[in-house]
Amino acid sequence: MNENAWVIGFDADDTLWHNETIFEQVHERYRALLGRHHDVATVDRTLFATEMRNLELYGYGVKGFMLSAIETAIELTQGKISADEIRELIGLGQEMLRHPVVLLDGVEEVLRTLAGDHRMILITKGDLRDQERKVMKSGLAQYFEAVEIVSEKNVGTYEQILSRRGIPAERFLMVGNSAKSDILPVLELGGAGVHIPYHLTWEAERVEELPADNPRFFCIENIRALPQLLATCRP
Amino acid sequence: MNENAWVIGFDADDTLWHNETIFEQVHERYRALLGRHHDVATVDRTLFATEMRNLELYGYGVKGFMLSAIETAIELTQGKISADEIRELIGLGQEMLRHPVVLLDGVEEVLRTLAGDHRMILITKGDLRDQERKVMKSGLAQYFEAVEIVSEKNVGTYEQILSRRGIPAERFLMVGNSAKSDILPVLELGGAGVHIPYHLTWEAERVEELPADNPRFFCIENIRALPQLLATCRP
Repeated sequence: MNENAWVIGFDADDTLWHNETIFEQVHERYRALLGRHHDVATVDRTLFATEMRNLELYGYGVKGFMLSAIETAIELTQGKISADEIRELIGLGQEMLRHPVVLLDGVEEVLRTLAGDHRMILITKGDLRDQERKVMKSGLAQYFEAVEIVSEKNVGTYEQILSRRGIPAERFLMVGNSAKSDILPVLELGGAGVHIPYHLTWEAERVEELPADNPRFFCIENIRALPQLLATCRP
Repeated sequence: MNENAWVIGFDADDTLWHNETIFEQVHERYRALLGRHHDVATVDRTLFATEMRNLELYGYGVKGFMLSAIETAIELTQGKISADEIRELIGLGQEMLRHPVVLLDGVEEVLRTLAGDHRMILITKGDLRDQERKVMKSGLAQYFEAVEIVSEKNVGTYEQILSRRGIPAERFLMVGNSAKSDILPVLELGGAGVHIPYHLTWEAERVEELPADNPRFFCIENIRALPQLLATCRP
């Protein structure tokens, strides 16, 4: 292990494997189910409002999404949605939980390449059991010295993880698709961030501006560019 | 810190604060809601069967309970339950998540007494955000060197926690109300277990037999008896 190398944190959903695409497919079917009652924009807006209202209570993840989707469907149909349709929503959510994990292009190769020279930690938020199951299904656990499943990714969370593991912030580099959850809080702590945008971003993860003028902020299009970036940028 | 002392693990729900009583109140209202359709025994049995069928998928906690309760209500009414009644179930679940944390008798005093001489860890299973919230509301976080929220409490889980923290199993003592989750796996690892039964036990946590002849198994009626027990039994 190179003592002069970065300790690398990896986000999981939409950084190592596809996730938002699965939500998007479910959203499509949700819109179709409520299409008799409301237009797409109203369905999307109301569902998002319910999710945000319940976020503090439920946290992130599929189970909270299911509950908010049921609540929204009742609200938008003024109670006229049938029990069979609600059962269909529960079925949709269970399909999401059972969905296979599909890795993004290049992920396994890059992790294998980097694992010899770097301490690597997986840091993800969501439902505990669902995230554990996805890590297991991904076959990637072997590359990480630890898997941290957290309820929120903010400055406090990263600070705790780094301090618990004795990692100086200036040696920590976080790789992820969400500027809000993966990049900004780590930069604030004095770490570095590599943003790899995914083609879909959940509204709650969107930020207005990227810290383009911060010298510790990097953006690449594909994880395959990561080893080259790390070879030229040292802590 | 006494190097010759136990490292103590504490379960949280129904060991440090009331939990099953809250579920029981909700069960009462659930039975009343479905009482027009089925007798209490059928409601209880079907709900429990749904919970067990979904456990691997949802994990423990209130959100999974809410989803299983909705699914069961649809099943038991053959789709005749109304959307308003389902909204009522969602409301019941949200009340559970918002419920104040009520400590069991003697808990704070005992933790304060033991904290000076022992490393103490809180080990609980359930939904990440809900358990974090309860720890925060309890005001007890200060007594623990760590809070471990896990998706299952089995031999593998305890083994990981002990190895990660460099705790020899023979110095580890777990205190909890569930023989199945808190005591048996720890005894199997060579640790010690103090069982403090709660007046209600969720069916999924029940075990046939307690390891009464294991010299590292102890049973007390109230947590107030713990300091005295530890004063006489050393690792």
